Amino acid sequence: MHTVEQLQEKLRSALNTINYNREPIEIYEPVAYALSQGGKRMRPILTLLSCDMFGGNIEEAIIPAIGIEIFHNFTLLHDDIMDDAPLRRGKETVYKKWDTNRAILSGDMMMILASKYVSKVDTSLLKDVLYAFNKAAGEVCEGQQYDMNFETAQHISIKDYLKMIRLKTAVLLAASLEIGAIIAGAGNENINKIYKFGENIGLAFQLQDDLLDVYGKQEKFGKKTGGDIAANKKTYLYLKAFELAKGKDLESLTKYYTEKNIDKEAKIRTIKEMYDKLEVKLHVEKEINNYYSEASRMLAEINIPDVNKKELINLADKLLVRDY
Amino acid sequence: MHTVEQLQEKLRSALNTINYNREPIEIYEPVAYALSQGGKRMRPILTLLSCDMFGGNIEEAIIPAIGIEIFHNFTLLHDDIMDDAPLRRGKETVYKKWDTNRAILSGDMMMILASKYVSKVDTSLLKDVLYAFNKAAGEVCEGQQYDMNFETAQHISIKDYLKMIRLKTAVLLAASLEIGAIIAGAGNENINKIYKFGENIGLAFQLQDDLLDVYGKQEKFGKKTGGDIAANKKTYLYLKAFELAKGKDLESLTKYYTEKNIDKEAKIRTIKEMYDKLEVKLHVEKEINNYYSEASRMLAEINIPDVNKKELINLADKLLVRDY
Repeated sequence: MHTVEQLQEKLRSALNTINYNREPIEIYEPVAYALSQGGKRMRPILTLLSCDMFGGNIEEAIIPAIGIEIFHNFTLLHDDIMDDAPLRRGKETVYKKWDTNRAILSGDMMMILASKYVSKVDTSLLKDVLYAFNKAAGEVCEGQQYDMNFETAQHISIKDYLKMIRLKTAVLLAASLEIGAIIAGAGNENINKIYKFGENIGLAFQLQDDLLDVYGKQEKFGKKTGGDIAANKKTYLYLKAFELAKGKDLESLTKYYTEKNIDKEAKIRTIKEMYDKLEVKLHVEKEINNYYSEASRMLAEINIPDVNKKELINLADKLLVRDY
Repeated sequence: MHTVEQLQEKLRSALNTINYNREPIEIYEPVAYALSQGGKRMRPILTLLSCDMFGGNIEEAIIPAIGIEIFHNFTLLHDDIMDDAPLRRGKETVYKKWDTNRAILSGDMMMILASKYVSKVDTSLLKDVLYAFNKAAGEVCEGQQYDMNFETAQHISIKDYLKMIRLKTAVLLAASLEIGAIIAGAGNENINKIYKFGENIGLAFQLQDDLLDVYGKQEKFGKKTGGDIAANKKTYLYLKAFELAKGKDLESLTKYYTEKNIDKEAKIRTIKEMYDKLEVKLHVEKEINNYYSEASRMLAEINIPDVNKKELINLADKLLVRDY
């Protein structure tokens, strides 16, 4: 078994061997830039962890894992155009640094590169790996569309929201684990279970993100709280509050999320107070715990020695901080 | 052996069975729209012709052939955003009809759909088919980047131009034939030769397009001539004229291609006269014939009965009209 740190190191050196010094540089320069921005590399780490856990040879999983990371960064690159986002991980986004055309085309190239890398598996596994990858890839696009729809939608149910974050975030985490398991030859039953583990843990992560935006300790997470509220983002917290609020509270919530020219600080403070009053935090924590329990149940059902599962459990526990 | 018309009919009914009535409609509506625009469906027809020619079962090639067509339409969809093109085949382009975001995302989805469809081949062929597809897909993106670079480039050599059209147009035609041959189990030597046939015939097609823009009979091709000249497109004809022109002619050519506020009709007339004077037409025809001869030589070397090659030769001859 390898530790997460060892896998990260392997991944780093594999990523460094890729040569983007190719023509036309107008495409490959943004590709290299986008991939050099770092981030947690969570998806390829999950692929390697899963492969390792099921006794596979992680060397066979590194290139496909990088393919998944390239795919993820492709979606960020195109999402940043669609969302008009000027910054990504503290640096200029590709379309800002260059232009929209280069961002579209270098993103397209990244999707193709992703497919090339993911396909570098043993011929006997290719069909299954590719099916898992393409299925998740299509779902991520669907999730992005729902996310954009929600910006202008009048009413979104919590069910709709959970469907959106499942597609946009959870399925790719699930597929990352799934592909590692396929490469390790884990067998269909285990492959399905590790997928479901990933799907549930992914939903828990995303809901935690929503929670931390409002209740995160600023000094710990380095982000100013209330960003989602300031941006009128319809997060789980907002939707839950909208569901629970009555009378004047409901009016006020709607007002703050639709009216322009409202003082930002006052808006964040007022909505936070409403969340407190409605005990929205408890509701989200309960939902996170449900997904976490379901994920744990799936992992427990996987019939391999417990010691093999340790690194994955540690990683999930570390990411689900539960300390706001 | 099937005729082109029979293959077109098969393709049409297969395309009609695809159901795009899926959620979110914001993605699938533009996908369905883009694919319903018709066009010659040249690429999937080449896949089916090639498969048939080498004695393969064309039923096995239909879904991958549709994948190639979806890929081609994905590139057009994203190219139209990059080129600010309002019309495609006489209809509004996707980004005009909806918006850029929906065009980016539905294009991304088409790329993923293309990969899904192309992958629907026998497991034993998947690696080869996918390799051919992804290689061509990456090259098409590179070609589009070179094409965009050329718009603002000061000087382009004919060699650069030929490289660009090879990447942007010829390699996908070549890969369409190649994939049909792989599905038919044609063997490596034949697969390479049919690829080279496609690459050469693709270059000939593109040069003919350049030629017809200036020398096409308007009543026959339905397009007004001189469009490339009006748009300052650096076609083979322009680059050849630039290479051959001297003194005052060279000055005048440069002036007409850089100065704004020039009367369009006068500009087209003047440049046409210069092309005539420099015998540019003869040069292009010679180049087209060279590529055609090389394509024919490749096809002749393929060791299958001549009768099997008939439909492909007929199609190529029909497309290379040689009657301006």
